Amino acid sequence: MLDVEQNRHAQKYSPNEMRRRVCWMLLQPLFRFSPRPCFAWRNFLLRLLGAQVGRDVHIYNSATIYYPWELVAGDECAIGEQAFIYNLGRVTIGARATVSHRAHLCAGTHDYTQLHFPLLRPPIVIGERAWICAEAFVGPGVTVGEGAIVGAGAVAMTDVEPWMIAVGNPARAIKRREESEGARMKAEG
Amino acid sequence: MLDVEQNRHAQKYSPNEMRRRVCWMLLQPLFRFSPRPCFAWRNFLLRLLGAQVGRDVHIYNSATIYYPWELVAGDECAIGEQAFIYNLGRVTIGARATVSHRAHLCAGTHDYTQLHFPLLRPPIVIGERAWICAEAFVGPGVTVGEGAIVGAGAVAMTDVEPWMIAVGNPARAIKRREESEGARMKAEG
Amino acid sequence: MLDVEQNRHAQKYSPNEMRRRVCWMLLQPLFRFSPRPCFAWRNFLLRLLGAQVGRDVHIYNSATIYYPWELVAGDECAIGEQAFIYNLGRVTIGARATVSHRAHLCAGTHDYTQLHFPLLRPPIVIGERAWICAEAFVGPGVTVGEGAIVGAGAVAMTDVEPWMIAVGNPARAIKRREESEGARMKAEG
Repeated sequence: MLDVEQNRHAQKYSPNEMRRRVCWMLLQPLFRFSPRPCFAWRNFLLRLLGAQVGRDVHIYNSATIYYPWELVAGDECAIGEQAFIYNLGRVTIGARATVSHRAHLCAGTHDYTQLHFPLLRPPIVIGERAWICAEAFVGPGVTVGEGAIVGAGAVAMTDVEPWMIAVGNPARAIKRREESEGARMKAEG
Repeated sequence: MLDVEQNRHAQKYSPNEMRRRVCWMLLQPLFRFSPRPCFAWRNFLLRLLGAQVGRDVHIYNSATIYYPWELVAGDECAIGEQAFIYNLGRVTIGARATVSHRAHLCAGTHDYTQLHFPLLRPPIVIGERAWICAEAFVGPGVTVGEGAIVGAGAVAMTDVEPWMIAVGNPARAIKRREESEGARMKAEG
Repeated sequence: MLDVEQNRHAQKYSPNEMRRRVCWMLLQPLFRFSPRPCFAWRNFLLRLLGAQVGRDVHIYNSATIYYPWELVAGDECAIGEQAFIYNLGRVTIGARATVSHRAHLCAGTHDYTQLHFPLLRPPIVIGERAWICAEAFVGPGVTVGEGAIVGAGAVAMTDVEPWMIAVGNPARAIKRREESEGARMKAEG
């Protein structure tokens, strides 16, 4: 049978991680109910719990960071309102990348071919200057390349090449951003 | 004209159901703000309001059960964080099935061919050992067969055959789970 | 480079708008925690902040109206539970139109071809008697015609013709509503 009991009794989290989870549960209201412009305060809280947060990062108070210690957020990146970062595995967001409101980065899944349905935690990487648009979903193990765009509501279950625009469900690359944009950004940045 | 007034004055809920709705509105904070591991407590509350909840069911505190009295949850099934069970009609979740975080089972709609846009409440059935992945949507009247998987972000508006994997929007079956998995699970379970 | 700093220092909102945003932030709990049937109270609050709200409009307390002063809601229209009206640009909802639970009207985006990623606020128009179904997404600049239906979970990034039904991601018109429905509604309404 599908052995749910074995799954539930599996030791999914180390004692160290369990301690962090309890800490985060207790501290989370200080994040959630902080005034909107207090980005530095929220970055401070996340760093306290092990996140690597760069300079001038903007994370909104209604965003969910599931495990701060599995977040790497580069300089000047942004995570919008009600975004859901389900970072059971590590989620890396490159410098100047934007994760728009209600987007979902899902770095957790199950191996359904195994009877006990074990939890997997494949990492997600969002490249520098990429844009994950509103309501978009990025699946476990996916890498979104530098400067790529995952369109509004798109469901990206496979990698998106740098400087490509992917839309739809399942998401497919529909065009390349203008050479001029990429070239200019690279040259100047 | 589209007769919104007639719709709003329609007696959509029996007096008995109105009483239950008020009870649930008042009791809901005891569900919503219960500590994460208190699955038994939440199951108790749901049963109090008429739900049929099996053994060792795991329903998270951020999940929404719209009408507890229209929920049938089999042994060892799970309903994840922020999942939305809009069970105006009955929603049946089979034993050991998993409804992942932010999935949406929507057992309510309107008949748009009628001028007064009447509310319909077609039931949803999720088969045993099925998996409704994160952010997936299952529409009114849909049956998801035993052991079937509705992929992350998929929108299932028609039935999904047992042991099939359906993805995309609209969701389409893309492959059958390995015979070995199904056979093994049936044989052993 | 992608000039995030220039973007953040841009004066995106006029002083008048900043005042309104602060007012709305302070008043919002009176909206959010009002009892479910108090539609008139919520309409009053929205009008106070500059919304144009018609007669017998039903907006639920868990819906988010981002900027009340950019909302135009026609007579007898409805905005369901947890719907998200991100009206940086004006959102106009026609008389008797329905925006179902968890739908998202997104009247804001960025011009990604510009180095400083400027904020754009293209308006959204939902025609009279249209229906935006549960979990549907309507993108910036989109017009949904009179009597049109955007199906559950559909992602509409382009206009939807009157009396058409659009589904999928990206959403495509799959059929016309019965002539009889449209003709009857027009004749009688």
